[in-house]
Amino acid sequence: MSFIHQSVKRVVTSVVVTAVCALGSASAFADDKVYRLKLAETWGPNFPVFGDTTKNMAKMAEEMSGGRLQIRIDSSNKHKAPFGVFDMVKSGQYDMGHSASYYWKGKVPNTLYFTSMPFGMLPVEQYAWFYYGGGMELMEQVYSPHNLMSFPGGNTDVQMGGWFQKEINSVEDLQGLKMRIPGFAGEVLAELGAKPTNIAPGELYTSLERRTIDALEWVGPSLDLRMGFHKIAPYYYTGWHEPATELQFLVNKRTWEKLPDDLKAILQVAMKTAAYDMYTQSKHESGKNWATIKTEYPNVQVKNFPPAVMSALREANDRLLKEHAEKDALAKEIQESQASYLEQVRPWSNISHRAYLNGQAEAEK
Amino acid sequence: MSFIHQSVKRVVTSVVVTAVCALGSASAFADDKVYRLKLAETWGPNFPVFGDTTKNMAKMAEEMSGGRLQIRIDSSNKHKAPFGVFDMVKSGQYDMGHSASYYWKGKVPNTLYFTSMPFGMLPVEQYAWFYYGGGMELMEQVYSPHNLMSFPGGNTDVQMGGWFQKEINSVEDLQGLKMRIPGFAGEVLAELGAKPTNIAPGELYTSLERRTIDALEWVGPSLDLRMGFHKIAPYYYTGWHEPATELQFLVNKRTWEKLPDDLKAILQVAMKTAAYDMYTQSKHESGKNWATIKTEYPNVQVKNFPPAVMSALREANDRLLKEHAEKDALAKEIQESQASYLEQVRPWSNISHRAYLNGQAEAEK
Repeated sequence: MSFIHQSVKRVVTSVVVTAVCALGSASAFADDKVYRLKLAETWGPNFPVFGDTTKNMAKMAEEMSGGRLQIRIDSSNKHKAPFGVFDMVKSGQYDMGHSASYYWKGKVPNTLYFTSMPFGMLPVEQYAWFYYGGGMELMEQVYSPHNLMSFPGGNTDVQMGGWFQKEINSVEDLQGLKMRIPGFAGEVLAELGAKPTNIAPGELYTSLERRTIDALEWVGPSLDLRMGFHKIAPYYYTGWHEPATELQFLVNKRTWEKLPDDLKAILQVAMKTAAYDMYTQSKHESGKNWATIKTEYPNVQVKNFPPAVMSALREANDRLLKEHAEKDALAKEIQESQASYLEQVRPWSNISHRAYLNGQAEAEK
Repeated sequence: MSFIHQSVKRVVTSVVVTAVCALGSASAFADDKVYRLKLAETWGPNFPVFGDTTKNMAKMAEEMSGGRLQIRIDSSNKHKAPFGVFDMVKSGQYDMGHSASYYWKGKVPNTLYFTSMPFGMLPVEQYAWFYYGGGMELMEQVYSPHNLMSFPGGNTDVQMGGWFQKEINSVEDLQGLKMRIPGFAGEVLAELGAKPTNIAPGELYTSLERRTIDALEWVGPSLDLRMGFHKIAPYYYTGWHEPATELQFLVNKRTWEKLPDDLKAILQVAMKTAAYDMYTQSKHESGKNWATIKTEYPNVQVKNFPPAVMSALREANDRLLKEHAEKDALAKEIQESQASYLEQVRPWSNISHRAYLNGQAEAEK
């Protein structure tokens, strides 16, 4: 390393300004201003993993900027509008948000596609689609008209299919099944006769215990352990509906445009790294928590939905997606981009990860 | 966002200094110096994916620092010592390096463990071990005595088992097999009677074509395509020996200590992000290139080593590792850390990624 005693252009400019101003206020230095941004997150205070991600992002931004970029995080107890994040960032009430894109599908249907799709890509397949397969550009088309920029905001890893009180052995077993499963996946299940419901998180445990509902999905062991569902439901089904749930950072475009170039770069890299870090952390937490569940509740049974059920779910999924695509040209374009990317990348995942995991599991026997 | 017209402490200090110095040289501002670091990479110029990673890291560092952190990259054509990177960074001839930890095992045996181990963790399992499972701390113990800091430097994704001229149906088929496979994996194969050789990359194609060797491993489709092996070898075996090959950034500790805190943070995040990005890029490139190979050479057959061969390889691997552990307490500690982490995380990978990939592949039929 050589220490070159020579300043970059913007510093030289500042020096000249200071020389002219003598002891003038430091506020004359546009680049040395402290930028204070406010971020609204959908989650409550100290929410595990998700909340760690916003803190990680803000800490990186502060450290890398030498304190010039300060991001204050308001959890839902503060702003009282967990599902108002889109609107609050759009209006400029908040500069940034941390949430999930598919929460906004009632408002802007095409936001559905940027979290995770049933039978879709796995986490790194989806990162590859975002960053190398055209996904970021499509997301920009959806968010730009709303004065918003959207970025990947952290991955939960593959979500589990959920906790069930009874086994699902056939498509008929889904008839009348009362399950807490929100969003598009709930619509898919409803197509097969299930009764998806939405229940506040605080009431989930009791609802499942008292059989007010027959099943529920939450996330995966990383967040399920503390909810305690393993104590009251015997079956843990593997996932199909959210193989790569990616949270979202939102940035108000006017806020973005006011930032100097170096802070733009810092903010963008901090968001990207915090997102990747959350995937790593989710892997760790799910590994650790699943080990705990298996040790303390060895009777919990992991189940796969039978092929006939998976086929029926997939047909219902494809039917609903087709309806969306017929109504909206951009929806069609996004669906086609995702389908063709998956078709390209999955054969590689099969000869790499799938072959390796199967080979190692075979050797364990 | 609120623009607070108030400077952070370091800036106020600079202003005072300037006021005192009047038109004094900008070099008085310690924090505004341009730090020029030199990085030596093991790869040649414009090496795909690996070389993109150093460029990506340097670009992020420059942009985030507003030009105050400049990293010059020298490829192997410049420094002429692809496997001298460890020594050149240790001595301070270079500030940084980009290479792979296991290249240094002849010099420092415990560097072996920080790239990828046969039958070991997958890429994100390994990131979880590095960042949440004690891996970074163990790596520091190995590198610190050499005046070096080591960081993850980008993942190739699961490496393929290699291109073979003949099928491997039994352990006997490995007897006398001439295969280009360097490093520890080569030692494992040698235990079973194979003849591992090392051949310069430029001679690999001809060696395989003329059957001077029977097989070779390189990386995976991301880098194999341009080598052309699919044109001359009919069998592409799935991986066992490097399930998560992670490259390495090296930093000279004296260089590190001279950097101001904000540039330390910028450099560390730039390295981490470039590493994650390389994994995403590798996924993309392998997906794309494997699609090309399958289309243009549909007769290439993907093969798994039979279970008996895998078991024999694993036994040989375990035997060699045990020998290392008996000689070196830190080697034993690292091996135990990796084994216990894998034991914790793999059951989760099996009920998430493995179950999902198998379910989806089943549905494709």
